[in-house]
Amino acid sequence: MKLYIGLVHYPVYNKNRQRIASAITNFDLHDLSRAARTYGVRRFYIITPLLDQQELATRILEHWKVGYGAAYNPHRKEAMELVRVCSSIQEAVGDIGNLEGEVPLLIATDATRQEEKPLSYAAAKGLVRSSKAILLLFGTAWGLDREILESVDYILDPIKGGTEYNHLSVRAAAAIILDRLAGNPG
Amino acid sequence: MKLYIGLVHYPVYNKNRQRIASAITNFDLHDLSRAARTYGVRRFYIITPLLDQQELATRILEHWKVGYGAAYNPHRKEAMELVRVCSSIQEAVGDIGNLEGEVPLLIATDATRQEEKPLSYAAAKGLVRSSKAILLLFGTAWGLDREILESVDYILDPIKGGTEYNHLSVRAAAAIILDRLAGNPG
Repeated sequence: MKLYIGLVHYPVYNKNRQRIASAITNFDLHDLSRAARTYGVRRFYIITPLLDQQELATRILEHWKVGYGAAYNPHRKEAMELVRVCSSIQEAVGDIGNLEGEVPLLIATDATRQEEKPLSYAAAKGLVRSSKAILLLFGTAWGLDREILESVDYILDPIKGGTEYNHLSVRAAAAIILDRLAGNPG
Repeated sequence: MKLYIGLVHYPVYNKNRQRIASAITNFDLHDLSRAARTYGVRRFYIITPLLDQQELATRILEHWKVGYGAAYNPHRKEAMELVRVCSSIQEAVGDIGNLEGEVPLLIATDATRQEEKPLSYAAAKGLVRSSKAILLLFGTAWGLDREILESVDYILDPIKGGTEYNHLSVRAAAAIILDRLAGNPG
């Protein structure tokens, strides 16, 4: 399994469907890095072009990796070590290329079913268990910009919970998707 | 499906395995209520005996149910409407008794495998899909006190992610467990 995840802060939509750069949420770093570590993800990219937001993310990471937090909670350190801050999806793809010697397959996630390039969970699980490097992209705010959806290889089917309600947090959605693709429920 | 969830703030363990009452985390209310609504959970109980913490939870709920938040984000309102603040597991059980006319089955969750009363995901899914009322309990901080584990009907198997790392946030764990028990992946 050569699975990577990216949390995209730009370009994403706000609630009025305008393109924005969202702010970094401390809980996203914690929850997604812990889920990533649990499911054997190789790296977790925090993607934002905003320098002050990159600095904020780096400060949080340093606290847990080498600062007071590292001694206070070594499990958190272990999770945070997976995180890399980068300015674009292209930069994350380049990093994976350096590590794996191949261009990763890009799989976007979206809460709404997309017509083009749909990918079922069964098919996605097959890809994740193959020898292919994969970068799974999650959007913050109201989701990934169309420009990203158009540039990826696949768009994973939305999570269905048996109701019409379709508003999971990105922290919950990412945990569920990692469990579906890389977990092994008894 | 008559599924209920409870997020327990007392009695739980701190990192030194002392019995404590944990503080309410704003993100837990948001993320778990949204996951509960997604998976058709009937009510989500915030369980704490501390009055100031009950008041804090109630203030957050009112903001999203009738205050500014209700107009700003109606989806959040819809999720928060599932939440009830109560002082003990017994109070939640009593509320479910009033609603369903039966005592719910109590299923605790724990990150560590317990010897007694283990419940697999397949068996738990069967129970959730039966006509039986079920209260699924999640612990905050370092997990549910032994006293709770001893008093429930079953203890759900821990989530395995294919690695030795076993430190999901309660927000991620609850989302994954709801998906495993009440979801329908394609």
